[in-house]
Amino acid sequence: MPITAEQQAEIDELRANAKPTLRAVAEGMENHLYKAHDVLDHGFIRVIDYMGDDAAICQAARVSYGKGTKSVQNDEGLIRYLMRHWHSTPFEMCEIKLHVKLPVFVARQWIRHRTANVNEYSARYSILDREFYIPEPDKLAAQSVINNQGRGEALTGEEAARVLEYLKGDAARCYDHYAEMIDQEGQQGLARELARMNLPANIYTQWYWKVDLHNLFHFLRLRADAHAQYEIRVYADAICNVVADWVPAAYSAFEDYRMGGANLSGKAIDCVRRVLKGEKVTQETSGMSKGEWREFESILNG
Amino acid sequence: MPITAEQQAEIDELRANAKPTLRAVAEGMENHLYKAHDVLDHGFIRVIDYMGDDAAICQAARVSYGKGTKSVQNDEGLIRYLMRHWHSTPFEMCEIKLHVKLPVFVARQWIRHRTANVNEYSARYSILDREFYIPEPDKLAAQSVINNQGRGEALTGEEAARVLEYLKGDAARCYDHYAEMIDQEGQQGLARELARMNLPANIYTQWYWKVDLHNLFHFLRLRADAHAQYEIRVYADAICNVVADWVPAAYSAFEDYRMGGANLSGKAIDCVRRVLKGEKVTQETSGMSKGEWREFESILNG
Amino acid sequence: MPITAEQQAEIDELRANAKPTLRAVAEGMENHLYKAHDVLDHGFIRVIDYMGDDAAICQAARVSYGKGTKSVQNDEGLIRYLMRHWHSTPFEMCEIKLHVKLPVFVARQWIRHRTANVNEYSARYSILDREFYIPEPDKLAAQSVINNQGRGEALTGEEAARVLEYLKGDAARCYDHYAEMIDQEGQQGLARELARMNLPANIYTQWYWKVDLHNLFHFLRLRADAHAQYEIRVYADAICNVVADWVPAAYSAFEDYRMGGANLSGKAIDCVRRVLKGEKVTQETSGMSKGEWREFESILNG
Amino acid sequence: MPITAEQQAEIDELRANAKPTLRAVAEGMENHLYKAHDVLDHGFIRVIDYMGDDAAICQAARVSYGKGTKSVQNDEGLIRYLMRHWHSTPFEMCEIKLHVKLPVFVARQWIRHRTANVNEYSARYSILDREFYIPEPDKLAAQSVINNQGRGEALTGEEAARVLEYLKGDAARCYDHYAEMIDQEGQQGLARELARMNLPANIYTQWYWKVDLHNLFHFLRLRADAHAQYEIRVYADAICNVVADWVPAAYSAFEDYRMGGANLSGKAIDCVRRVLKGEKVTQETSGMSKGEWREFESILNG
Repeated sequence: MPITAEQQAEIDELRANAKPTLRAVAEGMENHLYKAHDVLDHGFIRVIDYMGDDAAICQAARVSYGKGTKSVQNDEGLIRYLMRHWHSTPFEMCEIKLHVKLPVFVARQWIRHRTANVNEYSARYSILDREFYIPEPDKLAAQSVINNQGRGEALTGEEAARVLEYLKGDAARCYDHYAEMIDQEGQQGLARELARMNLPANIYTQWYWKVDLHNLFHFLRLRADAHAQYEIRVYADAICNVVADWVPAAYSAFEDYRMGGANLSGKAIDCVRRVLKGEKVTQETSGMSKGEWREFESILNG
Repeated sequence: MPITAEQQAEIDELRANAKPTLRAVAEGMENHLYKAHDVLDHGFIRVIDYMGDDAAICQAARVSYGKGTKSVQNDEGLIRYLMRHWHSTPFEMCEIKLHVKLPVFVARQWIRHRTANVNEYSARYSILDREFYIPEPDKLAAQSVINNQGRGEALTGEEAARVLEYLKGDAARCYDHYAEMIDQEGQQGLARELARMNLPANIYTQWYWKVDLHNLFHFLRLRADAHAQYEIRVYADAICNVVADWVPAAYSAFEDYRMGGANLSGKAIDCVRRVLKGEKVTQETSGMSKGEWREFESILNG
Repeated sequence: MPITAEQQAEIDELRANAKPTLRAVAEGMENHLYKAHDVLDHGFIRVIDYMGDDAAICQAARVSYGKGTKSVQNDEGLIRYLMRHWHSTPFEMCEIKLHVKLPVFVARQWIRHRTANVNEYSARYSILDREFYIPEPDKLAAQSVINNQGRGEALTGEEAARVLEYLKGDAARCYDHYAEMIDQEGQQGLARELARMNLPANIYTQWYWKVDLHNLFHFLRLRADAHAQYEIRVYADAICNVVADWVPAAYSAFEDYRMGGANLSGKAIDCVRRVLKGEKVTQETSGMSKGEWREFESILNG
Repeated sequence: MPITAEQQAEIDELRANAKPTLRAVAEGMENHLYKAHDVLDHGFIRVIDYMGDDAAICQAARVSYGKGTKSVQNDEGLIRYLMRHWHSTPFEMCEIKLHVKLPVFVARQWIRHRTANVNEYSARYSILDREFYIPEPDKLAAQSVINNQGRGEALTGEEAARVLEYLKGDAARCYDHYAEMIDQEGQQGLARELARMNLPANIYTQWYWKVDLHNLFHFLRLRADAHAQYEIRVYADAICNVVADWVPAAYSAFEDYRMGGANLSGKAIDCVRRVLKGEKVTQETSGMSKGEWREFESILNG
């Protein structure tokens, strides 16, 4: 149960009090405000605030391009044009602020996206809750045998059972000792900033994360991708759902050009041209390495 | 008249349509939305959008410091604490979007603040308006005789008259030729991206500028400072007025710690201590250079 | 003549004094150090310093991916892999510092690339030289009739002559008045920070510009592109030549994947697949807009 | 023993091969190149590369301020002037690249400094070593009783012994299970990207970290400060020693204005002025809160 009764009461109160504003309002986003979308076993994402909508993207673009944008007949077409030609600044004119609860090992990947603002719960000041990510059985994946970075099939039987036992047992014991070390009853109590080092990376942390739409799309392209680690991808997927309601036209263009698109090298484009002219092209005659050719074939074959 | 009738009609329409939102609303800021605040002879700033308020700063800080912040009794005290100890991330949780019309030579200084989002009117696509900054007579300052970077007294008499004549005449002639060169009646017309190079740096441009509150404060500290060039300072001053209505507690802390504060070196603090102990300290015994001592004295004497 | 005799003497002296270092040395880059590569009529680029080489990119990647990179047999293959999969951080481990002299209207485009460090010559402090960019006759292009942003054929005859006369005459007159206004003989002299506003955007400025290789590639992709304005493209081209000597493997991968590559949307990839299966696809059946289809065809047809 | 025999052999080889370069060479830094400076029980910092020196800072400043800088007689005076007046861009012209080995909980603080380039060892791809930070007995501090964030005296006796036993025992057990879970002998082996979640935050990681001098000074000001957590402060201290040899003039100015300096609020300056005029000022008459007054007194009393 990721949201406490106290938090739910706070959410209910916040959602009960609409106020008038003269700012751009995205109807689809108002429905999401403050509500927690569950992710993993104890995590969530919640929209805390947002700025702008599809129209705000176009408004900013029209400042830049002036009458030059008049030829594009509507906002949706303009947004597709901007996305296609990598005009990133109009998308930067929208901003979103999320409250995210997530395991530490996911947070460590996430924070590598530098162009964002973050306030994380500090275990120097405060005591962490006893909540750890324990994968569902079907997510307890083996190491991939073909890819150093990937996952294979789910573990089964005794091996799966042993792994779960270790993960649960070690987390419980580490947390018990953490709690015991910082306890100040009848002893001095270890400094929190030191005691936290005993906690494993599947413990949950939380933060406020604020980012503009351009940089959010960059994050989503990498983290909602099929090659991203499952445990961060589910957060990216949850955010995608929210963004689709917030800026439907921009999200649709993002899906077509970024998520569904592909970047072909000069060599790859040359191969496509040769094939279209009827030539038979193989990896050997393509100029590409084996790995590159494999990726190229998977794009052409879908 | 910096705002056209068409623009005023648009502003009036935008201001007539309040919509309900569940987001944080800063009452003081709603009054500013879309309205143009005149700056210089043809410039303005207008608030297009904002995110957050004083409470949002505290909310983000409390995520970070948890119960550690309970000891600070109220939001104002917490905000002062954050400002005093350079905790910048909670201030980054607020965001503002401005529409600014400004001379190009001011824009060139402004853009050096890199942590912001900008969409500028493009003279590659579109035609610039015939509007130039011409200083008021009392702002037509002489070069400072003591400071390479500063200004002295206002020019007077014939010299002032000649300067104004040059500024006005050259701007008019350059613009006439610009318009003639791009004209496509009876000739091909020079490309706009080339023709713009004939325009002097006092021509007005405009942009949407979006920035978080922490970086805005950094901008204001440098540009609302007495040593900043007058022509950018008036923009910073106009923004200060808006920010004071938006986040009154944060702005008040900013005024006390940043605008009204001073950074003393280790040597300077040592001198203060010696003076407080009754010692007579001079530049020669201070360990400071002459320039540094002069600045130090001006801080102590106010 | 973009380099003065004084500057050339300084360059010669700097190039005469090699010192031993334990750092990575890129032989191809040492040849470029300090030398000015002429660009436009008075501009140049000069390499002032650099950090890293192709090996440094691989070294950083191997820290990240550990033994996972052993399967890639050589540095060139690893660099191509990194570029193909958008692993940007290893490229950020190389850095270059350039001295650039360029017209102000080019500088205004350039500075929009925010992730870089800049020290520009300040016309608040110092007096600008009397040097303006005047296009060669074959670069005096007409406004494009099909593209708001582009250029058409070069102007000819009387129109070309008149444009050149305007550009030269206005620059000369504006500079004469600038010099007269700041002159302190027999008058107070206008403050430099004000007088500079009389100068047109084809006057030359200069700066030190420092950027990491990842962000430099992003700059080059946009500015060495055929759609970039000619006057900034020539700077990008000059930098490309330098980078090819500095990090040959990385530059080669950049050429193939970025400059020579193309980004296809999901719709475009779907069309390629359909064509490869023998289907006849037209704009009408493609799901693309006319503009998008035109761009797609030009990729396929080369 | 933080450096392996293999690593030492690599360092020796790199240090044996000086090559000629035309770039700026900082003699004091060449001595540090590649050598590991031990930090904590298994950590280190090593300089991998650097760009620029004190002269490079002045060179960049002189591009900006032109003849305006001639009045400052020497590089050291100019650097002090730049530091005093927050001219940050010349310091950005120097760059350093470090190899750092550090516990994960330190890495999590460190990474919050966003304006830097990082390549971290990836536990998705590769297996982490069995190395954990275990504090020395005198660093096993109790929670501060006056400050939520701070440390008190070192624990002693049975409490200290129990804490060490927990930290060592939990780390060992978690690592054993990590190793067992990923093992592929006679079982599939859990994916590395999952298994890493069982490791506590005192395990060591490593990265390449590249940053410009301005942002490094900002990092050092916060992390070499007496209020920073001891475990990151020792890294900052080690870096300070290196920087002092690299750019002695800039480091000296940094020490005086940043590390040894203090930022006084407008209220605090007003109090200093009143005291200097002979007035008796107390917290009650100062306009400051109790906390603020306490900090103010500690500045004045040293």
